[in-house]
Amino acid sequence: MDTRTHPARTRVAAVQAQLRQMDLDGFFMPSADPHLSEYLPERWQARQWLTGFTGSAGYVALTLDACAVFADSRYWEQAERELSGSGIELVKLEKNSPDGAIDWLLAHLPRGARLGADAAVLALAQAAQLSAACLRAGLQWTPGADPLEAAWPGRPGLPLQPVYEHLPPQATEPRSERLRQVREALGKAGATHHLVSSLDDLAWLLNLRGSDVDYNPVFVAHLLLDAQRATLFVGEGQIDAALSARLAQDGVRLAPYGALSEALAALPAEVCVWLDPRRCTLGLRQALPAGCKVHEAINPSTLAKSRKTALEAAQVREAMAEDGAAMCAFYADFEARLQRGERLSELDVDTLLSAERAKRPGFVGLSFSTIAGWMANGALPHYRALPEAFSFIDGEGLLLIDSGGQYLGGTTDITRVWAIGRPTPQQCADYTRVLKGTLALSRTVFPRGTLSPMLDAIARAPLWEGGLDYGHGTGHGVGYFMNVHEGPQSISKAIPDAHMAMEPGMITSIEPGLYRPGQWGVRIENLVLNVEQPTPEGGRFGAMLAFETLTLCPIDTDPIDRALMRPDEIAWLNAYHATVRERLLPKVQGAARDWLLRRTEPI
Amino acid sequence: MDTRTHPARTRVAAVQAQLRQMDLDGFFMPSADPHLSEYLPERWQARQWLTGFTGSAGYVALTLDACAVFADSRYWEQAERELSGSGIELVKLEKNSPDGAIDWLLAHLPRGARLGADAAVLALAQAAQLSAACLRAGLQWTPGADPLEAAWPGRPGLPLQPVYEHLPPQATEPRSERLRQVREALGKAGATHHLVSSLDDLAWLLNLRGSDVDYNPVFVAHLLLDAQRATLFVGEGQIDAALSARLAQDGVRLAPYGALSEALAALPAEVCVWLDPRRCTLGLRQALPAGCKVHEAINPSTLAKSRKTALEAAQVREAMAEDGAAMCAFYADFEARLQRGERLSELDVDTLLSAERAKRPGFVGLSFSTIAGWMANGALPHYRALPEAFSFIDGEGLLLIDSGGQYLGGTTDITRVWAIGRPTPQQCADYTRVLKGTLALSRTVFPRGTLSPMLDAIARAPLWEGGLDYGHGTGHGVGYFMNVHEGPQSISKAIPDAHMAMEPGMITSIEPGLYRPGQWGVRIENLVLNVEQPTPEGGRFGAMLAFETLTLCPIDTDPIDRALMRPDEIAWLNAYHATVRERLLPKVQGAARDWLLRRTEPI
Repeated sequence: MDTRTHPARTRVAAVQAQLRQMDLDGFFMPSADPHLSEYLPERWQARQWLTGFTGSAGYVALTLDACAVFADSRYWEQAERELSGSGIELVKLEKNSPDGAIDWLLAHLPRGARLGADAAVLALAQAAQLSAACLRAGLQWTPGADPLEAAWPGRPGLPLQPVYEHLPPQATEPRSERLRQVREALGKAGATHHLVSSLDDLAWLLNLRGSDVDYNPVFVAHLLLDAQRATLFVGEGQIDAALSARLAQDGVRLAPYGALSEALAALPAEVCVWLDPRRCTLGLRQALPAGCKVHEAINPSTLAKSRKTALEAAQVREAMAEDGAAMCAFYADFEARLQRGERLSELDVDTLLSAERAKRPGFVGLSFSTIAGWMANGALPHYRALPEAFSFIDGEGLLLIDSGGQYLGGTTDITRVWAIGRPTPQQCADYTRVLKGTLALSRTVFPRGTLSPMLDAIARAPLWEGGLDYGHGTGHGVGYFMNVHEGPQSISKAIPDAHMAMEPGMITSIEPGLYRPGQWGVRIENLVLNVEQPTPEGGRFGAMLAFETLTLCPIDTDPIDRALMRPDEIAWLNAYHATVRERLLPKVQGAARDWLLRRTEPI
Repeated sequence: MDTRTHPARTRVAAVQAQLRQMDLDGFFMPSADPHLSEYLPERWQARQWLTGFTGSAGYVALTLDACAVFADSRYWEQAERELSGSGIELVKLEKNSPDGAIDWLLAHLPRGARLGADAAVLALAQAAQLSAACLRAGLQWTPGADPLEAAWPGRPGLPLQPVYEHLPPQATEPRSERLRQVREALGKAGATHHLVSSLDDLAWLLNLRGSDVDYNPVFVAHLLLDAQRATLFVGEGQIDAALSARLAQDGVRLAPYGALSEALAALPAEVCVWLDPRRCTLGLRQALPAGCKVHEAINPSTLAKSRKTALEAAQVREAMAEDGAAMCAFYADFEARLQRGERLSELDVDTLLSAERAKRPGFVGLSFSTIAGWMANGALPHYRALPEAFSFIDGEGLLLIDSGGQYLGGTTDITRVWAIGRPTPQQCADYTRVLKGTLALSRTVFPRGTLSPMLDAIARAPLWEGGLDYGHGTGHGVGYFMNVHEGPQSISKAIPDAHMAMEPGMITSIEPGLYRPGQWGVRIENLVLNVEQPTPEGGRFGAMLAFETLTLCPIDTDPIDRALMRPDEIAWLNAYHATVRERLLPKVQGAARDWLLRRTEPI
């Protein structure tokens, strides 16, 4: 490619021309949409269009004569390649936080300069931080309109996939009951209205699902509700007449997606609107009538949604068995093909495994893009094999597969590392330390209400003991036929807040890892359910929770370094494999059955 | 006592009369002094004088016709007894935080009421919180003068004990070097001045010690320093001419304690004063010239002081051996007396143990009041036997002793539980779980920079496993011939902040516990030093730290429930006892030597 023709050159110039017209000196552009989602519809992939950098995270900052992309180490190589010839500076961040972009802007703009941002994609909480940073630095913070609206010819429209109902038995509570719960919370807080922009919150609240974004079974909409009624602002035609009528029975009426700002502005000034500053944009806050009260707090649905009901947990157990059966069928087939001398690639892993999942009852789609990383690729925690760049599973080594499915009765997320051929002693040591981390946390009993980040060190300690560590969190919350990453809990080095209290019914991943750049990676991940743990003295020292391991799939025992394992750890592993065998046997046949039996032998 | 004559009745009335004169409707009174110290000189024991409640923590709030004391569960029984007949309300707090007092004031005062507090004993950070709470509640927040100044006849004066120098070899850095370090930090932050009110910070900075407060070898003073000079505001006569001359050589001049406010007011308006909002009062902040810049940050000496030098660590190891020898001598004598049929009380424990410590070279005093708790008294984590209320060590059971000394070369803090007679299976199970907690954390290797609260769960997990927990933190920082409680690190459920990063040289306690009210308590505490831990791959995954256990004293093995112990835990304990034996043998003779040999046998 002639670097002078990198498309970013004309695009950046067009946006800078818009900034001049808007009387701005600088602009901050997060990777975000009006719903602050993890996966962005194409319409809001502004950074990708503008700069050509297609990584799944990163920020852009512009002045009138410069443009920079900010990315963390996962993306440096890719960003350098994609930005080459664009004239755009790549700023390498230690961690994926907008602070670096802000520092760059502060350094590139004179005191008194006007800094803008698109208020429609800026979380209220982030806007407050930016405002404070500008105040300190002497910049004028003037968030408002989106310069891309005029500078992006042929910008994609809204996704308009059909919305469908999540039905019993997988939907275990009627939407009327969920609306009632949220309204009860509003009443207690003295709020008259509630604005929900986060797509998983409103899908949960209304028992609706969609496919407007990749992997997350949600649809693009906002919800405004008061004590009696609710209005769903959604793309026209996404909800058919029959569903519309059923929603109306529960007091939910439809309005065009674009009509929200007007509806907010038309609210009487004496309302009190509950909104979550981390899940609602500045633009919507600004649309509210001047002087109206705002109750800023975590969405009540976020807490309720995280605590799966007993009926949901029963569904998840079933989905886990289906998912485990798919894993067995895949591994049995995959190993047989390798033994027959077939040459297989990371892409084939994705294809074969996804095909097995697709055969299972209740399967809807993948819960994220499969990570199949052979050797050095496994050392990239967010690796994805692409048709233009992938590896063949050649020779001996470690194959890391991190994958998951959306089922009507639950969301799965599992990582296994399988040794192909004979693992080296170093590979075995690494594998065993990670396994010890997974086991240590899986077995931990802890007080109800423990702030989830406080558990992080328990999974890391067996790695720390060997001078090892990993750069990512240990675990994330998981939705119920919903986003595979959901809050509020997270087992990580995050600063704990009260919302991260562990409660019965929460589902979380446990996924310590170890990465040797250029060599191999190890990660062993199960999903676990918070269950009440009876204590010998009946809660005298407080109620306790334990983790029920939900994920059902053999863990490779070949790469285990027995010298590093304690007897109690081996006993736990053998008990887990006995459960896996018992639960999956009814669901597998033939080669998959043989594979399951062989791979669940006690060690 | 005729309850109508409770002295608080007239005292509260006198203070309320003052409040009327000061045009205040309410008043908040923390337990604090102008140095925000843990132990208050008598002059600032205002709550004790006013209400008669003598607990070591608690708050007071007054309106013009009501008065309340706020205390956490440790003090409820004592407060009820001491406040009986006073007309003062006891408000029981869940945890020791001023929030409860503020809520009470907000509920007892009408909107627009004027709430005061003594600005001279209010931390800047706490004042900011109170100000925000008043703003939300519609109260006028008017901190200022102290109504007790007029209402407390015969109020004690300043303590005026002699100040002395901490000398080599125990003082391992000259004060000129410490002043240089702090000035370097000021220069980097663009601060011209530094105001130090916290007594341990300034004692560290100047290599001076005193005895103005109990247990902490500090003296009451403030320090104001700039790039060239430093002024120590200290009671007249506390520093003799010779020491004064030596201080002058290092650019430190003396001024009367009471002259600080004037000195602050006389600073030029263009200064920038570094002060720590958690360790400096509102009164001093208000004394600074209007419009002068303030750099609010943790005192640089707090961070420096927490990282003991290699020479200090060597001194501490020696002090620990002396302290351990005293423990052996005490236990040998104590057990022999019991065997001879002597009846001993908790008070005798304190007397005998303190006498053994006093024999050791370098001993200066106790580092806190000895906690000797027999059976049910051991279940009160902050118990102190008093001549008017104590127990005899009668029969069989568990004796908890938490004690420590100030030595010229270090500060000790150790808890041991010893079985008298034959412990019950339940006592053994409790004891063993606590021991497992102490061992688990003591053995943990962790990345340098780990925020200390993240390690808390590791000590608790063995208790949680049995449905057990304890209500206090797991560990606190410890000074070097200085306060036994010092920051910034703390292994607890505290919300982590960046200052709590674990760094080489820090000394911290590890002290999990278990308390059965009315029955017995268990706590096993050692002090540990953060040491750099070589890793097999030379820091490829980051630098690692390990804990070197500093405390040298046998741990009772009689109450160990072997069925709960893993082989690796027993091996650690045996290795610890081998070290204790080797290090203490040269320091003990006779019965103490026999006791040490017997009590360090491997199990």
